[in-house]
Amino acid sequence: MPEVETPAPDARQAAPHLVAIDWGTSSLRGALLDADGHVLQEQSHARGILTVPAGGFAAVFDELFGTWMRETGARCLISGMAGSRQGWVEAPYCPCPAGLQELRAQVVEVVPGRVAVVPGLSHEDDGVPDVMRGEEVQILGAVALTGIADGLFVLPGTHNKWARVRGGRIAGFRTCMTGEFYALLSQHSILARTIDAAAPLDEPAFLEGVAQAGNGKGLLHNAFGARTLSLFDRQPPAALASYLSGLLIGEELRSQSVGGEDELLLIGAPALVRRYALALDSQGVRTRTLGAEATWAGLHALARLG
Amino acid sequence: MPEVETPAPDARQAAPHLVAIDWGTSSLRGALLDADGHVLQEQSHARGILTVPAGGFAAVFDELFGTWMRETGARCLISGMAGSRQGWVEAPYCPCPAGLQELRAQVVEVVPGRVAVVPGLSHEDDGVPDVMRGEEVQILGAVALTGIADGLFVLPGTHNKWARVRGGRIAGFRTCMTGEFYALLSQHSILARTIDAAAPLDEPAFLEGVAQAGNGKGLLHNAFGARTLSLFDRQPPAALASYLSGLLIGEELRSQSVGGEDELLLIGAPALVRRYALALDSQGVRTRTLGAEATWAGLHALARLG
Repeated sequence: MPEVETPAPDARQAAPHLVAIDWGTSSLRGALLDADGHVLQEQSHARGILTVPAGGFAAVFDELFGTWMRETGARCLISGMAGSRQGWVEAPYCPCPAGLQELRAQVVEVVPGRVAVVPGLSHEDDGVPDVMRGEEVQILGAVALTGIADGLFVLPGTHNKWARVRGGRIAGFRTCMTGEFYALLSQHSILARTIDAAAPLDEPAFLEGVAQAGNGKGLLHNAFGARTLSLFDRQPPAALASYLSGLLIGEELRSQSVGGEDELLLIGAPALVRRYALALDSQGVRTRTLGAEATWAGLHALARLG
Repeated sequence: MPEVETPAPDARQAAPHLVAIDWGTSSLRGALLDADGHVLQEQSHARGILTVPAGGFAAVFDELFGTWMRETGARCLISGMAGSRQGWVEAPYCPCPAGLQELRAQVVEVVPGRVAVVPGLSHEDDGVPDVMRGEEVQILGAVALTGIADGLFVLPGTHNKWARVRGGRIAGFRTCMTGEFYALLSQHSILARTIDAAAPLDEPAFLEGVAQAGNGKGLLHNAFGARTLSLFDRQPPAALASYLSGLLIGEELRSQSVGGEDELLLIGAPALVRRYALALDSQGVRTRTLGAEATWAGLHALARLG
């Protein structure tokens, strides 16, 4: 098992007490935390739940984390899609508003006393339900790390989450399929013919897209501009992907009405978070950003509840 | 050539004078018109320009329309993508505002005196160009057929066109990728897993989608509702496609601000036009509808200019 490293001697001396895992759809990240929540070791694998055959979760877990579990005697908390119907064990959604206490009350034990799965959250809005799995732990971890108990927390990804936090609990949230729309348009639509999706971020083209999204003509129309700008040689293929990305993120910001916020908290992968920070900055909204540490802080905070 | 029928004797006596063709990306429709613009015969084929090898347009034309051309001595006008860079001959876009006279002035002869290609239109809006090819003929044909010289004309399809007509000319227009977004979401997105895209129109679910689109939360968010409504068993797979279609068309109507119009003119395939008529009716907007006859009327009107 070359992917799992033996803890260093000083790690063992620090009395590690939690194996924290975010087991998503397409990938899996894990960290070994000490009693204070400090990260001793981390690992990540392309072993999302979609790669695990039915009944195979215990074996994959033991392969990747067995050494940590045996050598440290730690407990393990798992957030993310491992708690979905297609995961290791189904942990039913916890309704909003919800904080650490509500999540803790619905944790599902897989190996009693050792391994448990954290539930996701659901939220009902105008008769339509919304769901998240994994992001609730990142949000509550960010609350713990920053001390911000009231605000708008944005988690960019394939399916972005916009969460309203009040009094340290998640009051409600919305999902935006912005990342998936970008993939569909840049890979499968008529735009795919002229877009160089592998090109690096072109900031001016990106911000031009963000600004265009504010024209009030709607995404269904504005997206076609990525076609015609190419047809008339107004944007090179290398800039079009950034322009389209700007159109989509701009549309997301417009429809989520962020204008009233002074500061947003962004949690996610640095390259994507940077795009949101750029777009928000162009609209006069300040941002603070967090990465994987939010997940570990959230699982640590949950574990401390016992 | 079984697809081309010999004109009936009475057709020949009526002095047919125009072979009218709408040659699009994926399909081709043609009609033999008499001197008054009456349709004597029609044919349609899955022989869009994407199916024609480079240099092969004359041969396909002769195969499908040679009999009509030889037996009647008619002229032929072709609208649509046949005039694009990938078509038979490129007919550069005619800028808006444009009516029949402007189009006529930019017709490109392919076989001098016999076969000519009609240009498409371009329109510049806030620094972003927009284009159409084929729809301009349908719109001007609809003006000729209905006598409506001022109004909003909507042509649903893969890439919908919203055209403002003033004084019988096309003042400007916008493209909306609504049809393509529907195809992308229902076939390639996470929604595809639970949508039965082949299910017939479910009017209540469709109108529920139209209404949801008005909630101001944006398409990027609302589309995810088609996922969660399924996850919570609130919409059966057979209704989800209609719900998603309603979300998209509702978003299009919202962003194109049709509220100020008393009546819209819809031109297109009956099944799709019906959805727009239903959605608009739910918002108190009356509609008139036209089909293929608009194309023939437009090409006939152009041919009469000589």
